Order: sequence, then structure tokens, then C-alpha cells
Amino acid sequence: MTEPPEASPRVRRTSTTLADGRELIYFDDSEPYLSGAQTREVVDERPLDERPTAGTMRQDALTGDWVSIADHRQNRTFMPPTDACPLCPSGGGTMPSEIPAHEYDVVVFENRFPSFASGSTSASGSTSASGSTSASGSTSASGSTSAGASANPLLAHAPALGRCEVVCFTSDHDARFSSLSPTRARTVVDVWADRTRELSAIDAVEHVFPFENCGEEIGVTLHHPHGQIYAYPFVPARTASLLQRATEHHQRTGRLLGADLLAAELDAESRVVIRGTAWTAYVPYAARWPVEVHLVPNRDVPDLVALDSDERDELAEVYLDLLRRLDLYYEGPGGSPIALPYIAGWHQAPVHQGRDVSRLHLQVMSVLRAPGRLKYLAGSESGVGAWINDVAPEAVATRLREVG
Amino acid sequence: MTEPPEASPRVRRTSTTLADGRELIYFDDSEPYLSGAQTREVVDERPLDERPTAGTMRQDALTGDWVSIADHRQNRTFMPPTDACPLCPSGGGTMPSEIPAHEYDVVVFENRFPSFASGSTSASGSTSASGSTSASGSTSASGSTSAGASANPLLAHAPALGRCEVVCFTSDHDARFSSLSPTRARTVVDVWADRTRELSAIDAVEHVFPFENCGEEIGVTLHHPHGQIYAYPFVPARTASLLQRATEHHQRTGRLLGADLLAAELDAESRVVIRGTAWTAYVPYAARWPVEVHLVPNRDVPDLVALDSDERDELAEVYLDLLRRLDLYYEGPGGSPIALPYIAGWHQAPVHQGRDVSRLHLQVMSVLRAPGRLKYLAGSESGVGAWINDVAPEAVATRLREVG
Repeated sequence: MTEPPEASPRVRRTSTTLADGRELIYFDDSEPYLSGAQTREVVDERPLDERPTAGTMRQDALTGDWVSIADHRQNRTFMPPTDACPLCPSGGGTMPSEIPAHEYDVVVFENRFPSFASGSTSASGSTSASGSTSASGSTSASGSTSAGASANPLLAHAPALGRCEVVCFTSDHDARFSSLSPTRARTVVDVWADRTRELSAIDAVEHVFPFENCGEEIGVTLHHPHGQIYAYPFVPARTASLLQRATEHHQRTGRLLGADLLAAELDAESRVVIRGTAWTAYVPYAARWPVEVHLVPNRDVPDLVALDSDERDELAEVYLDLLRRLDLYYEGPGGSPIALPYIAGWHQAPVHQGRDVSRLHLQVMSVLRAPGRLKYLAGSESGVGAWINDVAPEAVATRLREVG
Repeated sequence: MTEPPEASPRVRRTSTTLADGRELIYFDDSEPYLSGAQTREVVDERPLDERPTAGTMRQDALTGDWVSIADHRQNRTFMPPTDACPLCPSGGGTMPSEIPAHEYDVVVFENRFPSFASGSTSASGSTSASGSTSASGSTSASGSTSAGASANPLLAHAPALGRCEVVCFTSDHDARFSSLSPTRARTVVDVWADRTRELSAIDAVEHVFPFENCGEEIGVTLHHPHGQIYAYPFVPARTASLLQRATEHHQRTGRLLGADLLAAELDAESRVVIRGTAWTAYVPYAARWPVEVHLVPNRDVPDLVALDSDERDELAEVYLDLLRRLDLYYEGPGGSPIALPYIAGWHQAPVHQGRDVSRLHLQVMSVLRAPGRLKYLAGSESGVGAWINDVAPEAVATRLREVG
């Protein structure tokens, strides 16, 4: 069961299966490759309900966007006490953890309460959704219509095919991504690339989005450091918007919008935070969020899979640098830093369209507009999508350079 | 200064000017038209800073969306104690209120911390933004480019022209919209229509959006019952998306998308909450929010201005009915109702485009997915715009019918 197709040789990849048939994959980056070696000794024997199959998604006729109606998620695990953390290693004991191991480095498993899932009830942990209709790309971008059968075409639905995965960055419950070692962060980069490659190969999947929600202000229900990966059966609305603009720019200029924008930011200088050999971090000119940073490769790259080894090495370092600056961004009343809540998400090229015009970038954003003050997405943002940002992007960049 | 051009005859409309030149308009709906009569007696003599002129908005090259960079708003009034409420009548005394009157019914005034404002420094309270370049409609819809001058076209900006107004629904600090009398709610309908008509006449304005943020969970900083009206110098992203779909539907079928969707919902029945002579309220088929209701006129109407007197009468009643159901939607631990936080926004036809295909509707939505549990717009929603709704729309409609 050991197969290292995408991970670098130093990472040992071991796939196994949870009690309800969900797939779990260990990525061990340190001797003695502990969790991988354990898989024959520790077995998940929890009496779990049968794994859920795909729910339903519905198309909003007013915008064309697909909305996953995941009412089975309403009762998902909510802030359990630390001694019942489902992301800590269970060690094969009686603790109801998701991870049947005494220890692990990085681990990925299928979400127990997925918004998108396989259409089959197979317990094989297969990464291929079986023979179901795929919803075509978001109509926001393409104007195409729905795949769902319905009495009325304005009330279209389709199975919410795809896959949702959880990525645990470390077995240390009290860590943050920013406290990981460079080696561990490098492993996570490999894991993101591995999962992007595998999830992109699932029939129904049109887009793969690795992201991390960090902080109670973002609504995080589990404190154990982890991210998620959503593999959608459509091109989501904002991704479609990015793709549309990139396509128009390419048609007009023959160049990549992302590359021209990077050049413009490097030229302007005032919003650049980190300037590396392979990566650049800058606060975007028209930032929507009170704190927002884009981390982009200096080379034209469509997705995480296409990053070479040197780029992955530097990404681990630069991303840790960036997150540690965010940790220092605000000072609390006593002068001590306030760990910034954030959302970090990888915008990759969609799986089957626009791969020649899309350019990989990481978007990191925070709703904290001052210590103790949140930005709310109220009437203007939530109603009509018009964003108001109370903070000048240049001031954000200045602060992020200061704390470097 | 008294002019009742839009309001019904029973409403007395009196325009005056605050100390810094901002316009304030009283809409008195009850004898003896108290606040209107007072305007010569009570003068706003606060030593206010000069009113702010238009700030800047920047275009996000990745999506085409305009973002208002309103860094002067960062220090706006934040949860003042009740005795310093800026929306209570000041009575001409020493209390630092925005409203120089002993009493009022409904009052509208220009926001002291506007995201969009006039380009001139005129203190006349003029509703016409003077001779500035207007940014063309959102490029999400039209593919047009920016109007802002910039060294690099990917870093475009423009003055954030337009106007932001505050609408106080009542002088009663402890009221909610849902506790207004039908007469008062009817006055607010007239006020929304009056303001839509006047704001639409401002040169730079492309879209008028009346909305109410209600509840601390939405980030409301002032508890006094009030709404806002934003007059944007562009067609915002979500409005552009609505317009694009409506245009495509009209081209394909010759019919209005909003009308066909209403017919589909009436036919399906399962999500209809209130069925009136002139109005229908339903939970949308692909609701994004844990609680979301659309209130739509039964007749094809582009905006609030076009509503006739009977439609306005029924709107006041139906909207109060809907809000009172929302007040009863959740029960707290002791069985007592939890006042639902909500955002309510009027989607109207843009001022200069798509008026023949757009159809007025009110969207009311709440982030409360269970008592004490918020829906957060985290990675999937904020990153790529893919919404996950944990609650079945039919269950929401059932509950809203139950509490009617």
C-alpha cells in the first residue's frame, strides 16, 4: 500500500481505510516513518454509520451558481473538548479520533461530513466517482446550463459529486501552521500537490481548492491545525470570474493576466511584502479584506502540481515567513501579538478549462480590521457584492514589512 | 423647503442641512408633522469637521470588481452608549446626535462616514455629483474597462462617487423594523421610493441599493433601528450577475427571469411562505443562507419607484408579517423567541441598463444557522464563491409558515 508517486522520496505515503470505508493517507516525513509502519497494527474499529454518499446541489437560477444543500452537515462535530479531538492520533485506544495511529506527521482523510462526495456507496475509498452525471462548469463563466433533471429548468439540481478532504498538518494539537518546521511545511506542499493531482483525476471534478480556515473568528470548529481540500463538480463562481478576466486579458494581449499583474505590483513596489527567487508576496492593489496578501510564483504555473522541487522548497519557507508576519500584525492591549485569524486558499487552474491562461496564486485574508474588531460582510458585500475596505493596502504592506 | 413629490400626500417631506453641509430630510407621517415644523427652531450647531468628499475606489484586475478603499471610515462611531445615540433626536440640546429635532417620524440623512460621496466640496447638500468621471458598469457584466487614470491599466482607480444615506425608521431607540406600525412601515416604503428616484438622478450613480443590517451578529454598530441606502457609481458584481442571467433568459425566451421564477415557485408550492394579492414571499430553491427569503411583487416592476399605491400598502403589511415570523423563527433555551439577525436588501434594476429585463425583489437573509450558531463565510464561500447551505430550503419555509 506504499506508493510515492508525487511526494518527494523523503516522504513515505501510505493509504488505508477507515471503519466506514473512507480513505486515509499518511504522509510520513521523518524516521522511522511511524504512522505508515503502524497501519497493519492499528485498525479503526469504531462503529461508524455508513459513509454518506453525495448529497444534492441546486442551481440558483438568478445567478447560475450551484449551491450545495448539505443538511446532513448541520450536526457535525462542534468544538469538542481537547481530549476528544478527532484530529489527534487515537493510538488504537478508545478515544474517538479519526486517525487510527499512535503518531503521525501529515495525514489526509475524506471528510466525515462532506459537502461533495462520491456517488457510489463503495467502501473502497476509491478516488473515482462512479458514473454519474457531471454538472458542467459554472454558468457565471460559460453561460452553459444545468445537468440536473427537474420538472422546471429554473429549479435545476444535480448530485453534489466530488470529494472533501481534511489535511492535518501535524499531530501536535496546539500548533499552528506558522509554528511548523520548514521540513513539515515542505511536506504539506507535497501533500497539496499530491491531492490536487489525484482529485483532478476524479471524473466529476472540475476544480480543486486547498484551503485553511484558521481562528474562531472564521468559524473554525476544530482547533487542531488542519486545512481542507474541496474538489468541486463545477467551476465555482469566483473561480469562473477569475477565469473570465484571465481569458479576456489573454485574448487581448496574448499574455497571462497573473504575470502582468505581478509585474505591475513589482514595478509599483509599495505593496510588495516578500520578494523571493521563486515567489512574491504582495498586498493586492484593490484588496477587499482588511488584511489580504497574495503569494504568487514568479514563474507561470497553472497549479500546485506543476511546481518544481526548488519552488516547493522556497514556498515552504516564504509561506512560513508570511504567516509569522501575520501572527505579529496586530498588538493586543499589553503589546503582545494577537494571532491573526485567516483564510488561506490556493487558486489553481480549473481541471478542464482555461489551463493555458490561469496562473496559480495563494490568497490569504483576514476579517480582523483592528484588534477585537471584525469586518462583517453585511449589506453591501453580501447583498450586491460591492466591497468596502476600511484599510489602505499600502498601509497593510508597510506593517507586514515592519514585522518581517 | 417642503416638497412632497414622491411621498404620498399624508407624508410631509422637509429637507434641511446639517452643520457640515450634509442633507437631512424629514418624512413626517403623523400630525402635527412635528419634526418638519421644527426645522426653523432647531439648528445643528455642532462643530463638525468639513464633510468628506469622495474617496477612492480601485478595480480588482483579477475580477473586474470595484472596491471602495474607505480608510477614513476606520474610526467611525462604534457602539456608543444609549445616551449618546447619534440617531436619537437631539432636541437642539447638547447631545451629539445627527438629528437636530425634538422628535421625528422617519428621517434620512447623508452618512457622515460615506463609502461613496459627492466629488464636490459644496455644502449645499446637492444630490448631484459634480462633473467627475463616472466609472462604467461593472466589468463582470459588460467586459468594459475602467475609467480611472493610472500608470498601469491593471491598477485602475476612480473617485468613489455616489452617495450613502442613513434611514432612521423611528425615533424610538428600542424598536425594531418588525415592531413598527403598518402606517410607519408604509412611510418607509415611500421613503425608499423617494430616495431611489432622487439618487438615480445623480449623474455618477449606476445603482441604488436600500438595505438594512439588523443584529450584532451582522456587525451592526448602532442599535437604533435604521437602514442604509448606497448609491454606487457602478453596477456591483452580484447585481451584474443577476442582470447577465436575466438578460440571457430574456433573449432566449422573451420573458422575465424573475417572473418565470416566481411562477415556478408558486407552482412548486413547497417553499412559498406568504401569498398575497400583490406580493409573494418564498424561500429560494437554491438558498445560500441558513435562513433566506425573497419577497417579490406579483406584477413585473423594475424598482421601488414603479410600485403603485396599493402595492405599497400591501408591501408594508407583508414585510411586517415576514419580519415578525423571522422574530419567532428560533426558540432560545427557555422557549422564548430569539430575534433573528438579518440583512435585508432591495435588488432593483440598475439605473441605466437592463431596466427592461430586471425585476424588483427583496432578499432577506440570516447568518444564524441555529440558536447561538453562525454560518461563517469561510474558505469555500469567501475563497471561490461556492456556497454550502446546511439547511434544506423546504424546512425553512415550513417553519416560517408554522410561525405565521
